[in-house]
Order: sequence, then structure tokens, then C-alpha cells
Amino acid sequence: MRRRGRPPGTDRGAAQTSARIRAAAIALFADQGFHATGVAEIGAKADVQRGALYYHIGSKQELLWEILRDYTRLLLDDAERIVAADADPIRTLRELIRSHVELIVAHRRTVAVHLRDADALTAERATDLQRLRDRIQRLWQDAIDAGYTAGLLRSADHVVTNGLLGMLNSLSFWYRERGAHSPAEIAEILTETVLSGLIAPGDNTKG
Amino acid sequence: MRRRGRPPGTDRGAAQTSARIRAAAIALFADQGFHATGVAEIGAKADVQRGALYYHIGSKQELLWEILRDYTRLLLDDAERIVAADADPIRTLRELIRSHVELIVAHRRTVAVHLRDADALTAERATDLQRLRDRIQRLWQDAIDAGYTAGLLRSADHVVTNGLLGMLNSLSFWYRERGAHSPAEIAEILTETVLSGLIAPGDNTKG
Repeated sequence: MRRRGRPPGTDRGAAQTSARIRAAAIALFADQGFHATGVAEIGAKADVQRGALYYHIGSKQELLWEILRDYTRLLLDDAERIVAADADPIRTLRELIRSHVELIVAHRRTVAVHLRDADALTAERATDLQRLRDRIQRLWQDAIDAGYTAGLLRSADHVVTNGLLGMLNSLSFWYRERGAHSPAEIAEILTETVLSGLIAPGDNTKG
Repeated sequence: MRRRGRPPGTDRGAAQTSARIRAAAIALFADQGFHATGVAEIGAKADVQRGALYYHIGSKQELLWEILRDYTRLLLDDAERIVAADADPIRTLRELIRSHVELIVAHRRTVAVHLRDADALTAERATDLQRLRDRIQRLWQDAIDAGYTAGLLRSADHVVTNGLLGMLNSLSFWYRERGAHSPAEIAEILTETVLSGLIAPGDNTKG
């Protein structure tokens, strides 16, 4: 956390206030868009006084950056953890899908903000965010390449990796909290679709 | 086309002007966003005089609606044509994927506008657009249901349909004009991934 002037409370209180401001900003950006949201509005929703607000927020754009960066780092950290476990490539891929589905569902409002308002980042911040995203995609591509090299997967084309990540990212549009399936079930259905295919076993129309 | 006052030219000239305004609006909305684009800017880019401009455009929001409606109708019309051909369900699904990929690639700037700026539509227009999209999704779900009922597909879960459409819609983010594959090749790779699965034939780690 960056400090500006005298801290308005204890470190713990400051961390809680920052978390509250972050949550309020995500909710407002997701509901009405980054551009339509004012800093004062974020403060009001987070119940933070004007003085304390400017202690916690550098600028609205900086807040957007921190929100998107921290979410993307969450995805990256979990993908790195899974790849480091060094399981067989198909198990790694299953775990990557599960992790991605669960984090997207948990942070779907942030994903919606990312899809709509990432353009509002400065060119430098946009590049930084793209670098983090490229690292995630690289981990996925490496896992798929490893599966292909081992003869376990039929393709390691970038189109597959892009399509797979696109399929999972689309969850932020269509996931419903009271839908028929839990995130774990959705991950399982999508994993089976992509790994084993939609065509029923024993059917001969594959070719 | 709606008429406002005296037409500024022949019908054919008017249609060409409308098409030019439409193309300019899509380019500007895609590049800089709906909110950041002014009507005068659209006119300048389309090389249309101020008087003629207001003859062709009801409002910027109306223009956005017409752009998103016409694109969505294109998808719907092609899906209806494919389903009406009444081929076997897997062939229908293949054709639906191919059509979707090709139309998304051809209209990817409109798709980008849709993803970012559909919120700018009035509630009524947003509902109208959602209805068109629901009809497309219904056609896909019916084709998948038919395949499942015939024992050709292993699942007809809505998660599969949503994930599949999400995978294809994500093309607008990652398609590159000078990429390794043509739209037809991308459609083929994604179709094989989804229908036959990524796991190489003969591999025993499917379960």
C-alpha cells in the first residue's frame, strides 16, 4: 500500500479500508462502467471519508490497474503452482481448467470490468497487464505442448489454447449463481468436452 | 432506412452513404469506444456533410443499435438456414461452428463493440438484442439436444452450449489477420477439439 501523508488509522484498519474501497470500486465499475463512476461515489459506497479516500486511492485509473493486476496475478500464481507440481500433462491441464473456472467465477465482476474497461489503462499499464496474461497463456501452451510431445494430445495448436481460454473466460458472461451446476461441476463438464470430445464413444461419424 | 425531411440524393446514393456512415461508426466505436465517439466525428470519417449526416442517423445510440442488431441477425439468419437444411445433428453442429467462426472473423470489430458497449443501449433495445441472441442460442441448443437424443453426443448440457459459443465468440479477441490459419482452418481445429476431444486416439487416460 502506498502512503500519502499521515495514516488515518492502524495498519490493520487501513488494510480493511483499502479492501472495502477495492470491493466498492469493483461493484461500481462492473455495474455502471469505469468512466461513469466517480471517486467520490466509490468513497460513499465504501463508507470512507473524503480525506481517508485520497490516502488510499492514487487515482481512479490507478485503482483500476491494481484491481486488474491483482486478479491476473491470482490466476498466474495458481497456474504456476499447478505447473510446478509436475503431474502428467493431462492432469496438469485438468487442474489448470479447474483453477481457471473457479477463479473466474469467484471474480466474475472483475472479469467483466476487464473485458469492458481495460482500454482505460495507460499504455504502460496495459502492456504490464498483457505481460501477466501472456505468462498465463505461456504456462497453458507449455502444458499442451508437453501433452502433444508425449503423444497424449492430438494438437498443440495455438488456436486450441486460445479457444480453450476463451471458452473459460466466457464464463463471466453466462455463469449464474443459482444455475444448475457448481463451479466444480462446470469445470468437469468443460474439461470432459475439451479432452474427450462431445461425440459419444462408439460413434463412427467422427471422421 | 428512416427518412427525415428531403432526401439528399438518389436512393442508391443514400444507401451508399448509409453504408459509409455505418462503417465509419464501427471503426470509431471499435477503436476508441462508443462514449468517446461524437456524431460529428463519424460524419467526418465517412465524409458526409452535417445536413446529410442527420438525415441518415437518428442518434448515436440508434446507430449502435442498428449495427448490433444487423450483425446479430446475420448470425441468426445463417444459423436458421443451416438448421433448416435438416442434415444429421453432427453435420449441423459442424456447419453452425463454421458459420459462426466465419461471421465473427468478418465482423470482429462489431463483436468488440458489442462486448464493450452493449451497455449503452436503452433497456428496451438491450432486451430486443438479447431476444435475437437467445434465438441463436436456442438453435444451437436444439441441434445439440437432437444429437444427444440420437445417441451421437455424450452431453446436451447448457454448459456445453454456453462454453462452445463462448469459445467461438472469443475469436474477436485473439484472431490475427496474419495469423497461421484461415477462418476455415480455425473452424476445423475448434470443431475437432470440441467434437473429437484433445486426447489422442488410443490413449487410455481418458477416464
